[in-house]
Amino acid sequence: MSETYIEKLIKIVAKLPSLGSRSARRIVLHMIKKRENVIPELITALQDVYDNIKVCEVCGNYDTNSPCSICCSTLRENQTLCVVQDISDLWALERGGLYKGKYHILGGILSAIEGITPDDLNIDKLLQRISSENITEIILALPATVDGQITMHYISSLLKDKDVKISTLAQGIPVGGELDYMDDGTIKLALDMRKQL
Amino acid sequence: MSETYIEKLIKIVAKLPSLGSRSARRIVLHMIKKRENVIPELITALQDVYDNIKVCEVCGNYDTNSPCSICCSTLRENQTLCVVQDISDLWALERGGLYKGKYHILGGILSAIEGITPDDLNIDKLLQRISSENITEIILALPATVDGQITMHYISSLLKDKDVKISTLAQGIPVGGELDYMDDGTIKLALDMRKQL
Repeated sequence: MSETYIEKLIKIVAKLPSLGSRSARRIVLHMIKKRENVIPELITALQDVYDNIKVCEVCGNYDTNSPCSICCSTLRENQTLCVVQDISDLWALERGGLYKGKYHILGGILSAIEGITPDDLNIDKLLQRISSENITEIILALPATVDGQITMHYISSLLKDKDVKISTLAQGIPVGGELDYMDDGTIKLALDMRKQL
Repeated sequence: MSETYIEKLIKIVAKLPSLGSRSARRIVLHMIKKRENVIPELITALQDVYDNIKVCEVCGNYDTNSPCSICCSTLRENQTLCVVQDISDLWALERGGLYKGKYHILGGILSAIEGITPDDLNIDKLLQRISSENITEIILALPATVDGQITMHYISSLLKDKDVKISTLAQGIPVGGELDYMDDGTIKLALDMRKQL
């Protein structure tokens, strides 16, 4: 009996992404040491998320309401959609506050290895939205990987006949990046795409 | 309102040891994606730990009862105490199942830098136990650091006049360790302490 509650909590925590059994043990020990401060607060926060968070029926974002606050916002451009792989990408763009249009979450990218086909992605809904919401510009903010490129190519081929501007994020050396640490592919691409001063 | 519940949970998770804001975001996104499977189970496990885990009044271990199951066990040697810095060290020793005596958790080690003095540690209780439980052997299983050595020296000086055998863990090359990867201090120590075959 003795250790079961602790061991069970460690097992659950260890299954979370980016954690293993060692970090799970550290976290659980910390929780028990500071139990009065940590555990009730964490339980409340988990319960609030569990009870209140829904998937937005329009873009696929998580929010307390569906459609989500971004889809409902009257302050955002209505005719630009930024297509992202996952909600974490939406969060990354929102943290900077640099993008003022709306989003569409694909829920993944095409992958031959993982067997992800167009049917597994939220693409039909994207095509519907382009028609029904009079979208004029699509920004494909997908990962700069082979699978990301294939997905962008696939989506842009579907949109060929529609009257919509399609763009992808610029590629090159990141801000603050040192050449010495860049891979050959990035350096070649940055050279090919060099900008006249 | 929109993101508050999610943001609040991310903030709480990010404060746990070995996590930062990026891994907290990954974990919370995973929790929301699999919420039916993950969140209720995690809440129950947290609540069980919160409601049931106590600090053992004898050794300082966490358990559902106080005294804990190790202190109450009749199958363990009664006269040997293994002194450890923290409960994670007790867990490490118990995982191997190699030690069959009882434990005493110091709750830290002496540290001039962090300002930890003997009064901050569970040392008085250790001295009491040695008398009241007729302890004949103390194993000081403290970290092999300078602070650990100082703490071991301090405790053994307190026990000088008592009729109790004191030992520390052996130091040297770990099992499977390659010389090339060892620091000079460890190699010197392993040479000095070399064993005749």
